[in-house]
Parts: sequence; structure tokens; C-alpha cells
Amino acid sequence: MKVIKTQALTAQAFAPFGDVLTAAGDPTVMINQGMCARYSDLAELDFSDGQAGISIFKSEIRTLPYELDMVERHPDGSQAFIPMGNQPFMVVVAGDQDGIPVNPQAFIAPKGQAINFHRNIWHGVLTPLHEPGFFAVIDRIGGGENLEEYIFKAPYLIQNE
Amino acid sequence: MKVIKTQALTAQAFAPFGDVLTAAGDPTVMINQGMCARYSDLAELDFSDGQAGISIFKSEIRTLPYELDMVERHPDGSQAFIPMGNQPFMVVVAGDQDGIPVNPQAFIAPKGQAINFHRNIWHGVLTPLHEPGFFAVIDRIGGGENLEEYIFKAPYLIQNE
Repeated sequence: MKVIKTQALTAQAFAPFGDVLTAAGDPTVMINQGMCARYSDLAELDFSDGQAGISIFKSEIRTLPYELDMVERHPDGSQAFIPMGNQPFMVVVAGDQDGIPVNPQAFIAPKGQAINFHRNIWHGVLTPLHEPGFFAVIDRIGGGENLEEYIFKAPYLIQNE
Repeated sequence: MKVIKTQALTAQAFAPFGDVLTAAGDPTVMINQGMCARYSDLAELDFSDGQAGISIFKSEIRTLPYELDMVERHPDGSQAFIPMGNQPFMVVVAGDQDGIPVNPQAFIAPKGQAINFHRNIWHGVLTPLHEPGFFAVIDRIGGGENLEEYIFKAPYLIQNE
């Protein structure tokens, strides 16, 4: 089985696939009498139609090594995963070649970071590594299926770096 | 000083002010081969113009008893607070009488729950009670100030129920 080693999530490495949402560096503005740092507008929300909505996902916890047998994409909109626990989670993405996902990669998002998949980017399903497995998800609310799935002919095995 | 006792957050009690976002009851749909429950579109996102954006707030931790000396509101849009730690936080809201905030109330949102203030609802600033103090905030990204603040002539003291 082909092995994928996890890698640390960085904005640069993740840029081809989406946004890393983090409160790092200088805030956009200090609010609430200096008690709160605001880092504004960190994700490219991009919807063909419909509108942004907030949903909650409650997922089973996954473990490494993890067998990756499929990825999916949403042609009509971006999708942000925001962990509601202060725990790392895994983010799987892949490139695209003529409609086929290629070269999957696995990132470990550290505590306090969230991600936003850009529209139509191949990605794995939500893979929390720790309880509670709750995530807020900001994605397109609208009609149509907005889902394309791809089953790999041979699954990959994701292992810790 | 007038005392406000905290109360448990329930969708019913919070309905005049906004939405409680929680993964309770039957999910909207099971996804990811039955591994993930999706509770869809839990918040009324309502913007006069501009568009939804995702920001991160990093706030100082607050403690009870808490002196409430001001509230604020956003005339141009709703605002959701999503805790990125699996910890309760405090949510302060108030009614409105001819442009003046009245009858402030303090709710304790339990672990795993988030809230969305409806547009133009008087509310307190973000008041996490536990580390890490990170919240994802879904609100309007657009021009103009979109902020009205009100300083109470006499502050309130918020105490545990």
C-alpha cells in the first residue's frame, strides 16, 4: 500500500488547497478595550449560488495509521472545518488532473487552527484525531448535490511523519 | 449594584436574541459512510450588505462575578461566536426599548455549543470563562462601522446562579 506521511500544516504548503485560519502574528484590530484580538476575514468563502451557512458536524474519532480510500469535492462551494475542541485534527487534500484526484497529502492542523477548502478542491472527509469530534462547518447552503466522490483503485496508508 | 444571575442556555430562552448552535437530537443527515452526523444550517446569517466572513477572536479570559458596564450591537449584521475549545462560555444579551438596552441577561453556553446573535441585538463582548479563549466568529465583512455601544449609567454584577 502506498504510504503518505503526515506533515505539519502551514499556510504556504496548504495554499494550493485552501486557507489556514489561525490567530498568529499581529491581529487585524484590537477590540473590547484591548481585551480581544480580532483576526479578520481569514477564509475565502466562494459559492456559486445559495449562501453561507453554519452547521455542526459530530464525527467519529479516527486513528493513525489511517487507510485513505476516497476523497470528495464540492463543485459549488468552499468548506471550512472549525474544531470546537482545542485539539489537532487531520486534513487530507489532493491535486486534480483531468478530474482525477492525484498526489494526496495529509496535514496535521495544530490546536487552535482551522482550515477552509477552496471550492472544488479534492479533500478527505472530516478526520478528528481526538474527542470531542465536534466541528463547526461553514459551507454553501443551497440546492443540488454539490458533491463528487472518488474511490481510489488502491487505497493509501497515512502514517505519522 | 444590580445583580444578574447566570442562567442555562436554552434555544427557547435565547430565541428572542438569536440561535443556539448545537448537535442535539436527530441530525439533518448522516454523512461519510455513517461516521459523521451533520446538523445543517443552524444560524440565521443576516447581513444588510457585504458578505459572511470567518474571523478568529483571541480573548482574555473573564471570571465571575463579572461587572457588566456596556453592551453593543451590530446594525448591519448577525454575529456568531463558535468556541474553539471544548469549554463553556458566557453570553450576555439585552432587550431594546427605544434604542436603549434593557433587562440584560447572562447565559452560560455549555461545552460544544455556539451561538449566533441576530442582527442588531444588544449583546456583551465575548466573555470566555476558560482557556484557550479562541473563537471563530462568523459575521459581516463590509464597509461602515456596524457598531453601536451603550454604557450603562450603573453597571450590573453578573453572578453564578
